[in-house]
Amino acid sequence: MIETVLWEELKWAEIKELASQNAVVIVPVASTEQHGPHLPVSTDAKLVTTVATRVAKAMREGGVPGIVAPTVWTGNSLHHMLFPGTISLDYEVFSRLMLQICLCINHHGFSRIVLLNGHGGNEGPLRVAITEINQKVGHPVFGVDYWDPARKEMAEILQVQTGVRHSGEAETSLMLHLYPELVGDYSASVGPDRPDPEELSGGMAYTFRTYKDRTRIGVIGDARPATAEKGKKMLECIVERLAELFSRPSLWEITL
Amino acid sequence: MIETVLWEELKWAEIKELASQNAVVIVPVASTEQHGPHLPVSTDAKLVTTVATRVAKAMREGGVPGIVAPTVWTGNSLHHMLFPGTISLDYEVFSRLMLQICLCINHHGFSRIVLLNGHGGNEGPLRVAITEINQKVGHPVFGVDYWDPARKEMAEILQVQTGVRHSGEAETSLMLHLYPELVGDYSASVGPDRPDPEELSGGMAYTFRTYKDRTRIGVIGDARPATAEKGKKMLECIVERLAELFSRPSLWEITL
Amino acid sequence: MIETVLWEELKWAEIKELASQNAVVIVPVASTEQHGPHLPVSTDAKLVTTVATRVAKAMREGGVPGIVAPTVWTGNSLHHMLFPGTISLDYEVFSRLMLQICLCINHHGFSRIVLLNGHGGNEGPLRVAITEINQKVGHPVFGVDYWDPARKEMAEILQVQTGVRHSGEAETSLMLHLYPELVGDYSASVGPDRPDPEELSGGMAYTFRTYKDRTRIGVIGDARPATAEKGKKMLECIVERLAELFSRPSLWEITL
Amino acid sequence: MIETVLWEELKWAEIKELASQNAVVIVPVASTEQHGPHLPVSTDAKLVTTVATRVAKAMREGGVPGIVAPTVWTGNSLHHMLFPGTISLDYEVFSRLMLQICLCINHHGFSRIVLLNGHGGNEGPLRVAITEINQKVGHPVFGVDYWDPARKEMAEILQVQTGVRHSGEAETSLMLHLYPELVGDYSASVGPDRPDPEELSGGMAYTFRTYKDRTRIGVIGDARPATAEKGKKMLECIVERLAELFSRPSLWEITL
Amino acid sequence: MIETVLWEELKWAEIKELASQNAVVIVPVASTEQHGPHLPVSTDAKLVTTVATRVAKAMREGGVPGIVAPTVWTGNSLHHMLFPGTISLDYEVFSRLMLQICLCINHHGFSRIVLLNGHGGNEGPLRVAITEINQKVGHPVFGVDYWDPARKEMAEILQVQTGVRHSGEAETSLMLHLYPELVGDYSASVGPDRPDPEELSGGMAYTFRTYKDRTRIGVIGDARPATAEKGKKMLECIVERLAELFSRPSLWEITL
Amino acid sequence: MIETVLWEELKWAEIKELASQNAVVIVPVASTEQHGPHLPVSTDAKLVTTVATRVAKAMREGGVPGIVAPTVWTGNSLHHMLFPGTISLDYEVFSRLMLQICLCINHHGFSRIVLLNGHGGNEGPLRVAITEINQKVGHPVFGVDYWDPARKEMAEILQVQTGVRHSGEAETSLMLHLYPELVGDYSASVGPDRPDPEELSGGMAYTFRTYKDRTRIGVIGDARPATAEKGKKMLECIVERLAELFSRPSLWEITL
Repeated sequence: MIETVLWEELKWAEIKELASQNAVVIVPVASTEQHGPHLPVSTDAKLVTTVATRVAKAMREGGVPGIVAPTVWTGNSLHHMLFPGTISLDYEVFSRLMLQICLCINHHGFSRIVLLNGHGGNEGPLRVAITEINQKVGHPVFGVDYWDPARKEMAEILQVQTGVRHSGEAETSLMLHLYPELVGDYSASVGPDRPDPEELSGGMAYTFRTYKDRTRIGVIGDARPATAEKGKKMLECIVERLAELFSRPSLWEITL
Repeated sequence: MIETVLWEELKWAEIKELASQNAVVIVPVASTEQHGPHLPVSTDAKLVTTVATRVAKAMREGGVPGIVAPTVWTGNSLHHMLFPGTISLDYEVFSRLMLQICLCINHHGFSRIVLLNGHGGNEGPLRVAITEINQKVGHPVFGVDYWDPARKEMAEILQVQTGVRHSGEAETSLMLHLYPELVGDYSASVGPDRPDPEELSGGMAYTFRTYKDRTRIGVIGDARPATAEKGKKMLECIVERLAELFSRPSLWEITL
Repeated sequence: MIETVLWEELKWAEIKELASQNAVVIVPVASTEQHGPHLPVSTDAKLVTTVATRVAKAMREGGVPGIVAPTVWTGNSLHHMLFPGTISLDYEVFSRLMLQICLCINHHGFSRIVLLNGHGGNEGPLRVAITEINQKVGHPVFGVDYWDPARKEMAEILQVQTGVRHSGEAETSLMLHLYPELVGDYSASVGPDRPDPEELSGGMAYTFRTYKDRTRIGVIGDARPATAEKGKKMLECIVERLAELFSRPSLWEITL
Repeated sequence: MIETVLWEELKWAEIKELASQNAVVIVPVASTEQHGPHLPVSTDAKLVTTVATRVAKAMREGGVPGIVAPTVWTGNSLHHMLFPGTISLDYEVFSRLMLQICLCINHHGFSRIVLLNGHGGNEGPLRVAITEINQKVGHPVFGVDYWDPARKEMAEILQVQTGVRHSGEAETSLMLHLYPELVGDYSASVGPDRPDPEELSGGMAYTFRTYKDRTRIGVIGDARPATAEKGKKMLECIVERLAELFSRPSLWEITL
Repeated sequence: MIETVLWEELKWAEIKELASQNAVVIVPVASTEQHGPHLPVSTDAKLVTTVATRVAKAMREGGVPGIVAPTVWTGNSLHHMLFPGTISLDYEVFSRLMLQICLCINHHGFSRIVLLNGHGGNEGPLRVAITEINQKVGHPVFGVDYWDPARKEMAEILQVQTGVRHSGEAETSLMLHLYPELVGDYSASVGPDRPDPEELSGGMAYTFRTYKDRTRIGVIGDARPATAEKGKKMLECIVERLAELFSRPSLWEITL
Repeated sequence: MIETVLWEELKWAEIKELASQNAVVIVPVASTEQHGPHLPVSTDAKLVTTVATRVAKAMREGGVPGIVAPTVWTGNSLHHMLFPGTISLDYEVFSRLMLQICLCINHHGFSRIVLLNGHGGNEGPLRVAITEINQKVGHPVFGVDYWDPARKEMAEILQVQTGVRHSGEAETSLMLHLYPELVGDYSASVGPDRPDPEELSGGMAYTFRTYKDRTRIGVIGDARPATAEKGKKMLECIVERLAELFSRPSLWEITL
């Protein structure tokens, strides 16, 4: 009986056994980027890794085998590069990295793969990359932004924000719950503090902008009302919804 | 006094003059893909070209010089490839094509460029491509989906749909207004007619799917209530909103 | 009975039917580039599109089904980039674009494809690109420069030139016949007006040169004797010869 | 006063401060690959991460600021792909990933970067990749195999092996010391158990071979005499030697 | 006083000296491909190397320093691949190889570079490649097909052919003059012996074809009337014309 | 009975015959780079070509058919680029060139291919490239550094060096034996004459360095004790060992 849900802690014969059970493989896809004055650069990576691990455990309790691949900590963060600590890939390398990871996992016999995204800047690139991944893998690989299925529940728990945003109430609450020792002083962590040029078009025109135009400190949102309690509640909703989603047989009956 | 707004009809000295006025260059980005039993494969190309041309004319009337580049008729339509007539690029070639077009336009002195998108499948790829385009061009290039700014007005005009969808009420109405001779019998043009496997996840999980899974005839929406009158009204709203947007000085004050 | 010969005006079921007839698909390949003081930048695109359309019609009259794909308006025009209005691709993007277009057309069941070239700068790149295209498509794809089969007839019709050249007697005559409203004053359109450094080697050494070295106004040839009448005559010869060539069964019996 | 040596636990302002001190950045480069019947697939990643972290701490105690970047867990492991669990990149993606990581780190002001390698299969690829990395970064980036500087000491501590090999006495001892809970039964972990075809050439001819040719269980070496005590001793030697090496001012005076 | 004209025989200080004289560097570009039943696969390489060497010597006698780079023996010979012995590159690798060779030569101070082509299949690829080469090198690099400047003289010397063709009278005569020991029995070396499908279009349509369609033995031309005497005469004309061409100051005054 | 062992001197039918005997194909891989004040830039190419030729002859005498492909004279010599005469490829072009050469040789029916390396800078790149070559070719292709099998014998013959180094006793002796007319004055050819910064790390850290940092004249080693006699002895050992190695049936029984 294999206990851990972490790919990295498994021996090869154990992974072979999980492949024979056609376990669902969750690949956390994150970033390494500035997260304001109070959160570490691994915030996205730490959160999505924790979410994935708890989801896999919840799935196993429900009788669906799940494993969590190592976390892809190199995402699309060019818009944060003017803040130190950001390590970003361009789209070409990011998409090839994701493709080769998926091909290897599939090579070992796993046909149920989900890319669990933990970084807003990856949303577009993952959607585009999956087109080629599916063709090469031969099975539909799914992408899910971890905050998406429990979007409504999160909006109810949050006080001043309605979504995740960047280093604000949502992420700070989750980090306070999970990694309080890594959270710094967030009493001034509110932004943006610059007029947002993107909003000049009322959101109708899209372009690439650096975060430096919008916030001096690297925060879009308001971290001040964050609490560990909110983080705990949100995490529970997120895990429950994702575990339910990944456990649906109908999801995996879809073919290319 | 230059009358045409079409790049293709201009001589080089005229384009030089327009560059010296820093004219806004609108690049229509479309597709060549199946559009159900009643619309031609150039539907996206024809609609976005017409929209762009009318927008440029409206801008000129308002004193803002605008030109329309030739239409990019090769978009991201892999999901339509199982229907004959579709000519699609992969992301890599599409993004390099867009980059080189933008670099040439900018090379001639134009710093105000907007990619006016007329195909849903281009939305993700354009957003990703603009990241690299902006870095190489050195100015923010904007992407706009032509139906976006007048989304509300369109929803009011449409009877059974709320958005554009594919070969349904919206596109058929616009084509009836503009190219009635190219519109075939649409009395049965309603879809999807297959259970949509993507909806199994409630829209939470994204993946790449072919249209063949969803519709036997290539329609997502309901063309039956389409009328030329609706098309005329929608077009007016769309043109008005886009002309206003591209004429805002604040949009073009944004720098990289 | 399908009347139009334009791919873009067809519905998917019509293209399916034409594929079952193994129709010949003509892909016009052109450019967007300066054409002297009196011709628009789309001269190559407009001419080759018209030629292709008339050829396809003539073929149909002769009982051979033919269709005209949308025109590739992005060619190899780096040598014109110092004149505003030119939009050029490098070879790599151009060749991949051509390959993917051919692969899509072939995917729908068409094995008879001809790339009808309308721009001198594409001659070399198309010849090189076809090597890879044939290997990937699995059928021989043919390239033809539109002025080539009727070269002799054109030489007889022209007064001061023997071939097409650039924005001179031939192209201006064709444009006067087809698009007189787009032709400006050509009373001084004669060139080159600079010593041609390439000719220093007597044509024995080839290299890449910009047009700016050879002509201040962008003309190589002499447009002054151009007339619509000459254009009409040349067009008739060109169409007749091409239609005859593309209708030869022997051409399409060639295999890879 | 910044305490952690882990890049991932730092906030952006802290990384900025460390850049101003020109801290040495250690990038652990590992693999995810089968490690015999008793060790997890993350063995290389876990070991090199631990080594890097202890080295950075030792350096700080010696007054030289050091930080540890997140671990690159995707290495060159094609030779292990026939064993489940292996996730490998090809050289092209691996080298571009390493280049972009180095460029980002350097972008933030760090000119002292060392790639600490923890996987034999990365030795060749890293040496080749550094040629391009140095040219693009503009500073010499160093590669070090973690077992190299203390090679002699390790040979003395080990009983049946003289070097690291794969899943044998050295790696198993280190894992027993650091992660005993992840070490399975290694009473039969000895290999190779197949005639090694590479040795037919006496080591004179090199080629690419899969591990499956050489060992049924994925072990090259002999894990049976492994002990935590040996692991502890080796780790101390390794850390001491590496910390001393990375702290030498002369190393960092080298310019391109 | 440096005597040899061969780059490969020079020491670095000698090449430095020749760079300071801005010597003309001739790069022979050839192929390795079948040459019928009687000629070796290096025929193109041997001939163009000899031509280049004699040209460089003739130039030196005329006071113009010239050097011959090593011969590029990997050309574009896909059409010969069905005959054993052919070693061919695709265009992408061929063009990058040529670019990097030119960049290195230019890096050492040589701005006068000519690519002396000795293989028909390279004509198109070289013309296309030179576009990018010139842009990257910053000087015009010239391509010359070795048989081109003396085309008329050769036509007069040849009895049954008017041009070079493949393994026929011209090449066999040159080989008989220069490398008689490598020439086999050519009493039956005449071709093509299959109906040439390309000629179905009267030369108007171009495509990629394998030589196997046209000749069973690999000969296009007629080697039977070849003599060493004809080879000697042709070589003299070729060398004289090329030496004169490369020595013209006007050729090298051309700038990008 | 085919006498020559040189691929380049063979006709296609002869190569076909050798393929039917499954001859061993030796591909010499060299460089074009500075070799100090006294040796020509083709030193590596000349030596490895001669070695390969003699090995193939010795093999034939022993009843094993062997052929020598043309020599790849473009290697990885970036570290020599600051000395004139060096012509180097980057890894990407080098590895693709090697792959395409191997694929062509294999295409003609040869499954026994060895890349005989004659340049130290190619050691890493060849090892990395062979991974992909083997996968694409489908057979193991072997790499051998020519000096490796007879390393011990060479060390005994040499007086002041123990290995090959660069332009020192070993290479100069071989060149004195084989090409005395190309060897210049080597009475001062000893190096390095600059403190070697790489040795600061005791060889533990690897990075990319230019030779200019280490030697003003381009020599690493000591050419002064070189003699033709030593060269003759070394060559005999090298050839004997390599011929024996390539003739072992066991080497060629290895499969992928």
